[in-house]
Amino acid sequence: MAEKLSMQPYKGTRDFYPQEMKLRNWFFGIIRRELENAAFDEYNGPMLESLELYAAKSGEEIANKQTYNFMDRGDRHLAIRPEMTPTVARMVAAKMGELSFPLKWFSIPNMYRYEATQRGRLREFWQLNVDVFGCNTYEADLEVITSAIRIMRAFGADKTMFTVRINNRRFFNDVVAAITGKDIEGSRQVSKVIDRKNKVTRESYEKDLTALGLTAEQIAQIDALYTMTVEEATALCPESQGSQELLSLFAALCKMDLDKYCIFDFGIIRGLDYYTGTVFEVFDNAPENNRAMFGGGRYDNLVDLFVKNARISGVGYGMGDVTLENFLITHNLVPAAFGSPVKVLVTRFDDVPYEAYTSLVEDLRDAGIVSSVYLGQKKFGKQLEYAVKGEYSHAIIMGGDEYARGVVRLKNLATREEKEIAIGDLVQELQA
Amino acid sequence: MAEKLSMQPYKGTRDFYPQEMKLRNWFFGIIRRELENAAFDEYNGPMLESLELYAAKSGEEIANKQTYNFMDRGDRHLAIRPEMTPTVARMVAAKMGELSFPLKWFSIPNMYRYEATQRGRLREFWQLNVDVFGCNTYEADLEVITSAIRIMRAFGADKTMFTVRINNRRFFNDVVAAITGKDIEGSRQVSKVIDRKNKVTRESYEKDLTALGLTAEQIAQIDALYTMTVEEATALCPESQGSQELLSLFAALCKMDLDKYCIFDFGIIRGLDYYTGTVFEVFDNAPENNRAMFGGGRYDNLVDLFVKNARISGVGYGMGDVTLENFLITHNLVPAAFGSPVKVLVTRFDDVPYEAYTSLVEDLRDAGIVSSVYLGQKKFGKQLEYAVKGEYSHAIIMGGDEYARGVVRLKNLATREEKEIAIGDLVQELQA
Repeated sequence: MAEKLSMQPYKGTRDFYPQEMKLRNWFFGIIRRELENAAFDEYNGPMLESLELYAAKSGEEIANKQTYNFMDRGDRHLAIRPEMTPTVARMVAAKMGELSFPLKWFSIPNMYRYEATQRGRLREFWQLNVDVFGCNTYEADLEVITSAIRIMRAFGADKTMFTVRINNRRFFNDVVAAITGKDIEGSRQVSKVIDRKNKVTRESYEKDLTALGLTAEQIAQIDALYTMTVEEATALCPESQGSQELLSLFAALCKMDLDKYCIFDFGIIRGLDYYTGTVFEVFDNAPENNRAMFGGGRYDNLVDLFVKNARISGVGYGMGDVTLENFLITHNLVPAAFGSPVKVLVTRFDDVPYEAYTSLVEDLRDAGIVSSVYLGQKKFGKQLEYAVKGEYSHAIIMGGDEYARGVVRLKNLATREEKEIAIGDLVQELQA
Repeated sequence: MAEKLSMQPYKGTRDFYPQEMKLRNWFFGIIRRELENAAFDEYNGPMLESLELYAAKSGEEIANKQTYNFMDRGDRHLAIRPEMTPTVARMVAAKMGELSFPLKWFSIPNMYRYEATQRGRLREFWQLNVDVFGCNTYEADLEVITSAIRIMRAFGADKTMFTVRINNRRFFNDVVAAITGKDIEGSRQVSKVIDRKNKVTRESYEKDLTALGLTAEQIAQIDALYTMTVEEATALCPESQGSQELLSLFAALCKMDLDKYCIFDFGIIRGLDYYTGTVFEVFDNAPENNRAMFGGGRYDNLVDLFVKNARISGVGYGMGDVTLENFLITHNLVPAAFGSPVKVLVTRFDDVPYEAYTSLVEDLRDAGIVSSVYLGQKKFGKQLEYAVKGEYSHAIIMGGDEYARGVVRLKNLATREEKEIAIGDLVQELQA
């Protein structure tokens, strides 16, 4: 090879050097701990699935366009997963008879979407998926929304930083029917206009609703909904199952003192047709980034793609690593340092047998102290430089003289203080 | 969709249900802890790379055959990574000027290889990669081999269960030259025959060596090497740099009391042409599975694929999850249960407001106790059944009577003992 290879990662993907990896491990570690604490179980599935899995959920064209897909040598049309929901629905379907419902599951897979890259949107990303399967009442919606709030709080986020905006698709259909007289399909068309409300001009929005047959008065009635409380809104169709779900959910959030993070928002639709009940989005409140970070909702029919009349209701959300990282950085929620505060580099000298250093390091490691001997034979100054750049907290210095006396000098790299310590006392000193 | 979708994962891939996921998280958790303790830093890179990255290392044909590869819409020829080494070499090359060498890095990526599936060999797998870059002397070989031994020991494996078999490519070339008079290319051809020795008959092995021009006497001299100690073998070419590396490495392993896990083995070649010094394989000693589980070695020129005369030497190994899991199961090293020993299900009754349960659970979670309220409205017996199947250790029972008195009944699901406890004392009781 005369020509050298490119050193850049593929467009829209990232190299995670140790510093970036520490950040990611830190935030996914917090998420994992929070969810395990709430008795959610982690699962995972293959990176490759048959393309038809995504086509069945989102339509062939979208599946083809948004995924990396190709034929394998056995003429199977495969796709790199662009999302986790079809995989988890397949897994639930495959073991329906054995699994103990309700399931509380989460996963943090990597996935690919073929799209133009922009801030917060890359081609490869990691996404937390949280779902409850097999409980079709508001308690599961509450559990899922609670988990999202607990995760945000675990990062140190408070109510000034994020808001959970909640709506309900059943309520939406019923209230649109009450105002306009439209059936489910008609209300679906209205929902599409409302879903893109913030992306178009007011004129365009009104024009679209008028085109669907809505009068100016009906449009005004819908306008009023955007600023109503959940009590005011649900009073418009008190018999709706969606109204009942919304009221139960908000009452519980209130009793749990979580309502301070939540608000009813008639504008939350979450485009995807498969949502059937509660829908929600978690917004970043920062003025420079005031938009949905992640969201989810209830879907009733995904397992039916695999098993006739499975009737396993699910509710869940997905949270991408890029968006989360932006949020944490924007709100100064990332700690200055990660990992163990004590990290020891044993420097080395030529007049001491190398094994004296490796044995010392083995003892430190056995005691759970993060440590390493300097690999190679650079001068002492270079070794110290390496320790500082590698964020070591301490250096151990043991030349021929110290070695002969069974002591080391322990140097604190932050304070630059040095003291002599007997080798036998070293573990205790570092653990203190 | 009239026809239902398949519920099977794609051939050669696995669904990780919570039970399997717990196992994998357990063993990768141990590995991560052990490596972080030894001051290795974790990194990660993209799942997709340009195909030429693999072609440059292994040749176009192998890269094409062994990878899942395809063209993206910008006519870039991409491959799903079949291994991590090209990615990490690219990452090191890209930041050569900024990074502080020697690097001690590890990663646990998922990857794909297009191959016939068999025991221990799947199409999708996870692989630990451990590497040291920028130290071209035996100390780095020692560090890497030590980390592998420490990982095995952390799983509870002892010297009866595994053996690290070590050889050196420089020594190999020099000793083959000493015996046969062959140059580097000649010794490379001999190495290929030795590499497949255990896969062919003795006749075929001898025939292949004879075809390379070796006499019966030379073949006998090579035979003798297979049973020699490192001292005996290196005495055949004491001036060889490879001999010096082997002797230093074994001397250090001996001083560190790690030689009991290690043996010199002239038969260890590790096919890949890019190894240049120390090579090693970790064998499972179980008679039913006596074969290499994983291995690695020193390679000198990978970063040169990206940067002319980079001269960054690397040494490392890769360990697949499937092989490791087989080993742990074979040797009964998998614990009976994973995770928190205390896991509490709060059962629910209709005569108590639901929020009383969710508030209780929130308090338990805030205290770090793994807990959940039963989601849904099944009968009490069903709720208890759910707790047992979900490996909960305790159930909390609070009916209308208990609720009125501010107490709960705490049921230990292993012993079936039940006792009444004031709600205020519950956290303390469960933490004890």
